Amino acid sequence: MSFASVLVLNGPNLNLLGTREPAIYGAETLDDVAKLCRDAGGRLGLAVDFCQSNAEHQLIDWLHAARSKVDGVVINPAAYTHTSVAIADALTAIEKPVIEVHISNVHRREAFRHHSYVSAVADAIIVGCGTQGYVLALERMATILKNRAAK
Amino acid sequence: MSFASVLVLNGPNLNLLGTREPAIYGAETLDDVAKLCRDAGGRLGLAVDFCQSNAEHQLIDWLHAARSKVDGVVINPAAYTHTSVAIADALTAIEKPVIEVHISNVHRREAFRHHSYVSAVADAIIVGCGTQGYVLALERMATILKNRAAK
Amino acid sequence: MSFASVLVLNGPNLNLLGTREPAIYGAETLDDVAKLCRDAGGRLGLAVDFCQSNAEHQLIDWLHAARSKVDGVVINPAAYTHTSVAIADALTAIEKPVIEVHISNVHRREAFRHHSYVSAVADAIIVGCGTQGYVLALERMATILKNRAAK
Amino acid sequence: MSFASVLVLNGPNLNLLGTREPAIYGAETLDDVAKLCRDAGGRLGLAVDFCQSNAEHQLIDWLHAARSKVDGVVINPAAYTHTSVAIADALTAIEKPVIEVHISNVHRREAFRHHSYVSAVADAIIVGCGTQGYVLALERMATILKNRAAK
Amino acid sequence: MSFASVLVLNGPNLNLLGTREPAIYGAETLDDVAKLCRDAGGRLGLAVDFCQSNAEHQLIDWLHAARSKVDGVVINPAAYTHTSVAIADALTAIEKPVIEVHISNVHRREAFRHHSYVSAVADAIIVGCGTQGYVLALERMATILKNRAAK
Amino acid sequence: MSFASVLVLNGPNLNLLGTREPAIYGAETLDDVAKLCRDAGGRLGLAVDFCQSNAEHQLIDWLHAARSKVDGVVINPAAYTHTSVAIADALTAIEKPVIEVHISNVHRREAFRHHSYVSAVADAIIVGCGTQGYVLALERMATILKNRAAK
Amino acid sequence: MSFASVLVLNGPNLNLLGTREPAIYGAETLDDVAKLCRDAGGRLGLAVDFCQSNAEHQLIDWLHAARSKVDGVVINPAAYTHTSVAIADALTAIEKPVIEVHISNVHRREAFRHHSYVSAVADAIIVGCGTQGYVLALERMATILKNRAAK
Amino acid sequence: MSFASVLVLNGPNLNLLGTREPAIYGAETLDDVAKLCRDAGGRLGLAVDFCQSNAEHQLIDWLHAARSKVDGVVINPAAYTHTSVAIADALTAIEKPVIEVHISNVHRREAFRHHSYVSAVADAIIVGCGTQGYVLALERMATILKNRAAK
Amino acid sequence: MSFASVLVLNGPNLNLLGTREPAIYGAETLDDVAKLCRDAGGRLGLAVDFCQSNAEHQLIDWLHAARSKVDGVVINPAAYTHTSVAIADALTAIEKPVIEVHISNVHRREAFRHHSYVSAVADAIIVGCGTQGYVLALERMATILKNRAAK
Amino acid sequence: MSFASVLVLNGPNLNLLGTREPAIYGAETLDDVAKLCRDAGGRLGLAVDFCQSNAEHQLIDWLHAARSKVDGVVINPAAYTHTSVAIADALTAIEKPVIEVHISNVHRREAFRHHSYVSAVADAIIVGCGTQGYVLALERMATILKNRAAK
Amino acid sequence: MSFASVLVLNGPNLNLLGTREPAIYGAETLDDVAKLCRDAGGRLGLAVDFCQSNAEHQLIDWLHAARSKVDGVVINPAAYTHTSVAIADALTAIEKPVIEVHISNVHRREAFRHHSYVSAVADAIIVGCGTQGYVLALERMATILKNRAAK
Amino acid sequence: MSFASVLVLNGPNLNLLGTREPAIYGAETLDDVAKLCRDAGGRLGLAVDFCQSNAEHQLIDWLHAARSKVDGVVINPAAYTHTSVAIADALTAIEKPVIEVHISNVHRREAFRHHSYVSAVADAIIVGCGTQGYVLALERMATILKNRAAK
Repeated sequence: MSFASVLVLNGPNLNLLGTREPAIYGAETLDDVAKLCRDAGGRLGLAVDFCQSNAEHQLIDWLHAARSKVDGVVINPAAYTHTSVAIADALTAIEKPVIEVHISNVHRREAFRHHSYVSAVADAIIVGCGTQGYVLALERMATILKNRAAK
Repeated sequence: MSFASVLVLNGPNLNLLGTREPAIYGAETLDDVAKLCRDAGGRLGLAVDFCQSNAEHQLIDWLHAARSKVDGVVINPAAYTHTSVAIADALTAIEKPVIEVHISNVHRREAFRHHSYVSAVADAIIVGCGTQGYVLALERMATILKNRAAK
Repeated sequence: MSFASVLVLNGPNLNLLGTREPAIYGAETLDDVAKLCRDAGGRLGLAVDFCQSNAEHQLIDWLHAARSKVDGVVINPAAYTHTSVAIADALTAIEKPVIEVHISNVHRREAFRHHSYVSAVADAIIVGCGTQGYVLALERMATILKNRAAK
Repeated sequence: MSFASVLVLNGPNLNLLGTREPAIYGAETLDDVAKLCRDAGGRLGLAVDFCQSNAEHQLIDWLHAARSKVDGVVINPAAYTHTSVAIADALTAIEKPVIEVHISNVHRREAFRHHSYVSAVADAIIVGCGTQGYVLALERMATILKNRAAK
Repeated sequence: MSFASVLVLNGPNLNLLGTREPAIYGAETLDDVAKLCRDAGGRLGLAVDFCQSNAEHQLIDWLHAARSKVDGVVINPAAYTHTSVAIADALTAIEKPVIEVHISNVHRREAFRHHSYVSAVADAIIVGCGTQGYVLALERMATILKNRAAK
Repeated sequence: MSFASVLVLNGPNLNLLGTREPAIYGAETLDDVAKLCRDAGGRLGLAVDFCQSNAEHQLIDWLHAARSKVDGVVINPAAYTHTSVAIADALTAIEKPVIEVHISNVHRREAFRHHSYVSAVADAIIVGCGTQGYVLALERMATILKNRAAK
Repeated sequence: MSFASVLVLNGPNLNLLGTREPAIYGAETLDDVAKLCRDAGGRLGLAVDFCQSNAEHQLIDWLHAARSKVDGVVINPAAYTHTSVAIADALTAIEKPVIEVHISNVHRREAFRHHSYVSAVADAIIVGCGTQGYVLALERMATILKNRAAK
Repeated sequence: MSFASVLVLNGPNLNLLGTREPAIYGAETLDDVAKLCRDAGGRLGLAVDFCQSNAEHQLIDWLHAARSKVDGVVINPAAYTHTSVAIADALTAIEKPVIEVHISNVHRREAFRHHSYVSAVADAIIVGCGTQGYVLALERMATILKNRAAK
Repeated sequence: MSFASVLVLNGPNLNLLGTREPAIYGAETLDDVAKLCRDAGGRLGLAVDFCQSNAEHQLIDWLHAARSKVDGVVINPAAYTHTSVAIADALTAIEKPVIEVHISNVHRREAFRHHSYVSAVADAIIVGCGTQGYVLALERMATILKNRAAK
Repeated sequence: MSFASVLVLNGPNLNLLGTREPAIYGAETLDDVAKLCRDAGGRLGLAVDFCQSNAEHQLIDWLHAARSKVDGVVINPAAYTHTSVAIADALTAIEKPVIEVHISNVHRREAFRHHSYVSAVADAIIVGCGTQGYVLALERMATILKNRAAK
Repeated sequence: MSFASVLVLNGPNLNLLGTREPAIYGAETLDDVAKLCRDAGGRLGLAVDFCQSNAEHQLIDWLHAARSKVDGVVINPAAYTHTSVAIADALTAIEKPVIEVHISNVHRREAFRHHSYVSAVADAIIVGCGTQGYVLALERMATILKNRAAK
Repeated sequence: MSFASVLVLNGPNLNLLGTREPAIYGAETLDDVAKLCRDAGGRLGLAVDFCQSNAEHQLIDWLHAARSKVDGVVINPAAYTHTSVAIADALTAIEKPVIEVHISNVHRREAFRHHSYVSAVADAIIVGCGTQGYVLALERMATILKNRAAK
């Protein structure tokens, strides 16, 4: 039984995970990550809704829908991290806790990857922990949601 | 009877108007704004086509379609104001008068909201007048279109 | 009968309106604009005080005097938009609603005209609507002042 | 008979080609360009798949699909050149030769058009050759693919 | 009996002191500050000439006049701190000791208030000491003038 | 029994944790965090060495000593994050996995806190998870060290 | 007999010429310069109107008045060179040939003196020729006005 | 009898005062300054604790210790002014009034000396008053502490 | 028979082609490229004049001479791309079509190689096509010159 | 009879004067300018040596030779104005008065033309006076050399 | 017998020399370098005092002590090169010749390593000569000290 | 007998050494430096080829010729340090050890002298050692060449 639900959102090109640049992103596929998240969710009492889209508007639409359906959002915005004010605005608009995840250490890559529009509207940011970063984000989310429930 | 038609276009997250950050955006919903615009249009002799989308390409497609159907465009590009060269290019391409509207005063917000790709291709910009900004934009548009008709 | 009074303030070189660079600023003179504003004021229930000065300190002095005499300020700061912290400070000091107007679209001109010290202290900004911009500003001001009166 | 296949991808507003700003982009339509490319492909032994979309995600989806279907990509990213990290990431992810094409000389236009996220991930860039730029890109692509085949 | 005379100069909007933004500037009026300065001057042996103007040129004219009349200048240039090269040039031209005073801590306010054209031509700068800053400035001025007299 | 040992290093002012700015840093003291880390270490099979210093050189000396004694480093460099090339060089020199932790979300604070010399030499970065961030870092470290052991 | 008339305008602090920083500005007074200009004007057939003001608005007012009275303007804007958009706008508005003069070589002084708002609206700029720069400017102005007359 | 106590803290190289670059810093030694401060403290009713260190961490440790022992801090951070976020954080953490002092006018020296991490967390800043700056700072501190006591 | 003539100009260090950094520039020598260009010219009806110099002035002199002798210029300015305003001015002065060629993809190299003074005065730019880039440039030049002839 | 000798030096592309971009540079050829200078020199008592080169080193060599042969230098460095530290160093090395001349108003052209390495080492700068600028420069040079002779 | 004494100072992490990143810093240890310096000192007539510390304040204290004890300073400030104004101030304060040494070529590394606070206060800088750089620095120091002695 | 040969290359204006700005560059002539280098070469077993040119292309040509003739290059690029990508490219192309020398400390001079295109392609840089810098560079070069020979 889960006490809360979390949307785990994945941005553009993450559908290629495990097949694209494995030196940077590792060998696990996005399905592996989905399973990882659902397992962790099961362990933590969180119902996990796991989605990916290459479309900025699809991510925004899912976030809008999430307003009345989920208690928190874990997001790996991928390339949209650096270019989408619209996703950052949607994250603000839904008024839920938000955790930003990046699989690789973006601070070791090109300079334009060092800036994130999302970080200023997220509660927490987890970078460079590989796919385990999603699990750590869910652990943190569980803590936040339990604390809120406790109040 | 309207003497001209105007497309009123709304960008991402504006579908949440009235429910999102009311301290910044006020309590009116986007339907209220649509009605406000249609009423003003009726008064000014302008047929108003009112749309919103979270999708950059949808806004572009509507602008393309507007080339042969409308006489002017009022646009609140929301977050795409600051990031979309594609929408600015579409606004240039359609060769119609364009008025940019922002409900809140973007110059009092984050520095990245002070730059607009749209402003350089718009004829006029109306900022911080709340939802009344749409009505003022339609008034100005009516004047422009009447002057053009008069020539 | 007017229910409120508004100061309409015009900055340097605007006394030449209608005679200077008509391609940018149009053919109407500042007297035409004053009449336009008084007519609009009459229609909207606003007593309009209309002034122009080339002197930064004169504009500041009028703003100080306005503290106890008017209910709102419409200002076209012209060149002082980009260089006068003192006028921006005066606008803050008088604690009245402020609307900034520019006749031409400053965002299509030199880069130094894209920054305004006034915008951050104004409630609303109306750009590129020609002299009609003054009328739109008065309409918005009437709404603001009516709403305040209604509270 | 073609010895290899190439995806020719076109970004936002290029569907208006020939009708939009002919002083900059010329009088040929996108259909003319498609025919030009197919003819050149026929001459060079390249099967040409020619697409256009205003949607960033559609371009990304086509690139993903191209991973197993084509041998090289010619892309005119139009406005997304300057704003889309996601398309640049997709181009990297598919691990095929990439040639970037711009019809007009972007270096003679606004400063924001001088930077391209795509150039750093493309093999070659052809700028300002009009629609002939597509043909030149296909010629270069034919050479690259023949050299690879020869290895 | 005073052994030397000092001009205390106040820039734009300071005439509103005590009535404008008391959270930043406190409740004392400029007359209170004038009295504070004259009292301190009396105690320190300095004849104090205390003026305020919203006009840049008036401040310059007073500085020019001061060349033959006073031994030192204490100046709170207010908004002109950040925009007036002309006042800085006048301060250099008069070849007297200069102390710059700001009532509030400008380094806690907007970034454009962190730069002062005056600081590079002043001998000393006293920031954020409230109206007591004027008194401290006069104390320092007394020391400077005594040391000069002693040579 | 622990299979590996980890140094958890804390930078300047963290000794005040729980007593300083609780709105930003929470109410837990550094001793609470030490206990949290040792408990997590016990659960994860990691021997945890937990230190804090206000001295840059002390942090460097501990890192040097750690070269032959520990298998990984978790570091909250606090203010030195933004100013110490020397600590970043020491982290590189010891050739161990490094995870950077910040209790609060530094991306919501002053601009100078958005840059970290450490991030480019760390393997992972965990920001804004409160004191739980240390636990998450230890979990990730356990995974890294197990994977290395497994090779 | 003069065939044309020229306004020679001098900005802030130039009234102190000859008494202020003689190492930079030389020993001649502004009266000497006025005589120099009138003598040169006499020789060149130009009626010279020579003025100085510390007030930005006074300089603007004189420029406005000059529109119907003079054929060209020689201006040493002094400190307003670097800060006054209003004077630059006035120079544009009067639609007369304009020559900018600086007595000292501003490019050897502080960096903020390297930028001039006036240079972009002037026809010619003469820098670092001492007070002779005024005479050279009048010579050039005579040539321009003769050429215009000749057309 | 003192009614309050103040820590006067001096940063790196100030131990050389009076012997180092006397043209910039004057001929008084740090012992002279300590005496000056203690004398002023005696006159003002403030117990003065006067320290100097070249070590950033020592300054931080003294500030931490001061939390429970002193009522205010006067600090001349010397070179650490421009490089130490850690000292600025410590000054924030101790939640006491802070006055920053610089003996010379840093705004007349190298550009990197124009920025201070401390100024944004100090209440007041006194620059270029020589060693008398310490006395003025103590006078201001006495006023602040008296006002707080009076509440 | 050639219907037009083209100057192919090569800048500094290109005489080492084929022997210098073959990983970047390939194994063909400049003589190979000259032959490639002459062969392509023969095929396209263009008489090709092929030169190389390490001297900026020699390149300028050849361009001046080309004014009356050739119909178009293909130029690989090599290092002078990034530093020579003089060559860019010469290219403008000769009033012929200009195509800029770079063998390697300069956008994948150091940041200073991303800016070209030549691109703003060239008609087209071909980058990263290896030595084939010269042939593509000649093809484009043939089209331009045929179109001009056809008018 | 001349009392002094002056080198008039012209940089790259000026040999095309009168034939290149007459809208910017006018219709006079460089031979016309040489004659203009020699005539003015005759009138002013200055022997004029007039040279032009497209080669940076030739200009430097002439300057070195000028050390023992001429009394002053008038230089129009053309494109080398913006890129040649070597010419600026040579101008410093020869220790003669230097006047920089530009025929057109460089401040109305591209931003990179607003910076001159020469201006900081020149005594005077004359911009936008057409070819008359050379004559004005010689007049100023005559004054400088007469004053030096008079000492 | 030595005719002068030199302090050779080494900054943070240099104690790891020979064991840390040998690809950058080589295989010699700091003890090897000390011996190298002492041998060179013996040969050159210089008594060499060789120290290393990871502590900024320790380096400063040694510099202060050196004022009365040594005739010159050779310093490899390592990471403090880029961040320590305090060490640069100490180097200025001691009024001795200073030579800065870097073992590796810092200009081939990260951009933040290209700026040195020390270079502006050093007499000479020797970069990228490996540990031989210390010997070359001592040779230069011997020359400087002999020349001073000779005066 | 020399075991290796070294080209010592000198850039623009260095032919004036000893006669130009002796306060910066000292009293030795370039012939003195040549003798210094040949003597040092003799002592070190290096045949020294010593050249100077004011021409960028001459320096490049000598470097190209050096590819097959010398074992290493010592270069003082003088003004070309800051402006010549072409010389830096030539230094890379010849694939020999390179040592950059500057007689004066360029970091104490104008900001534009702080950047060197050469430093990133040199092995070592020696700055501010006067003409002895050449000797130190030859000593380092001898070590490098001996080490290479030894492998």
